Amino acid sequence: MLTVYGMKASGNCYKVQLLLELLGRPYRWVEINSAAGETRTPEFLAKNPNGRVPLLELEDGRRLPESNAILCFLAEGSPYLPTDGFARAQALQWLFFEQYSHEPYIAVARFISGWLPQDHPRRAELPRLRERGHQALAVMEQHLSRQDWFVGARCTVADLALYAYTHNAADGGFDLMAYPALRAWLARVEAQPCFKPQTH
Amino acid sequence: MLTVYGMKASGNCYKVQLLLELLGRPYRWVEINSAAGETRTPEFLAKNPNGRVPLLELEDGRRLPESNAILCFLAEGSPYLPTDGFARAQALQWLFFEQYSHEPYIAVARFISGWLPQDHPRRAELPRLRERGHQALAVMEQHLSRQDWFVGARCTVADLALYAYTHNAADGGFDLMAYPALRAWLARVEAQPCFKPQTH
Repeated sequence: MLTVYGMKASGNCYKVQLLLELLGRPYRWVEINSAAGETRTPEFLAKNPNGRVPLLELEDGRRLPESNAILCFLAEGSPYLPTDGFARAQALQWLFFEQYSHEPYIAVARFISGWLPQDHPRRAELPRLRERGHQALAVMEQHLSRQDWFVGARCTVADLALYAYTHNAADGGFDLMAYPALRAWLARVEAQPCFKPQTH
Repeated sequence: MLTVYGMKASGNCYKVQLLLELLGRPYRWVEINSAAGETRTPEFLAKNPNGRVPLLELEDGRRLPESNAILCFLAEGSPYLPTDGFARAQALQWLFFEQYSHEPYIAVARFISGWLPQDHPRRAELPRLRERGHQALAVMEQHLSRQDWFVGARCTVADLALYAYTHNAADGGFDLMAYPALRAWLARVEAQPCFKPQTH
């Protein structure tokens, strides 16, 4: 059986869980508390030298880190990964957008808002994180005002990756009222058969 | 013919140029000066709403942004993209590592060191950028002390993407003397037939 090392509160980890649920694939979940340093122990660094979750472990012991690489690996051969070359490249485009232009602002704002004390110096980063996060949400809104899904005519890994930190962006102080197409898309993702909400 | 909108000084743009040269594919290069705001004009935003280079334009007018998505698209069917599913996922793993754990520190340190005035307030970010950048270089060094290439037994898109901002990391204040395996790998990439150095 597949093993996922992950932290339930992390959107990057939730992505992997969500896809496994949508695919109906059985898996074992090993909870790793990165906030308590559990991704920096010698045991964990031997599994992933970059010291991050999620980490996928196959039945034969091979391991794969990086949430969006895991999504592509697991989705291969399923409708969640396009087969056409250009559509597949577009899915990758949105996965890289998510990790470079979306997650570093929206997920980090959520972390600072929800996990750090009220007087923590990193709260000074919030205005810039929110400005950049809103830029990413505006790019998504523009795209979703023209089509229902990020790539092609159905839900793919691109939607799942972007859903992970968009559905709870309010935790980081992002008001989604100004993004109607984005809110309709969140509801479409949640209406997928076997959809599982994030629990933490 | 393919068109690349890019900025010669950008490692993300150089990646695309390097792969096209290695593949021997003809292309047209349109220089876009993002430092002068040319990625934020209405004309450019109509091509890429996220306002970034590189941007690939196909003969039929379809466009693809995100450097590492472009690499995967162009490398499909060539030896630079593995065909085995797990090896392909490992190439993606390193591409996401590059965009999340490497480029935001090493490329940004290079930008601040080389493009901003000596008294610019963003210079205060340099110590943290260098600490995180060295963490990424250490992960690469550990991997390359065991194998010649990031994935499998030959140069792939993973190596090209990581080469782009590692070969000139010294511009951002990173001394590579402590990374002998990494320096030997840089030389292996540069020994690829049809290798083209970055010019800017």
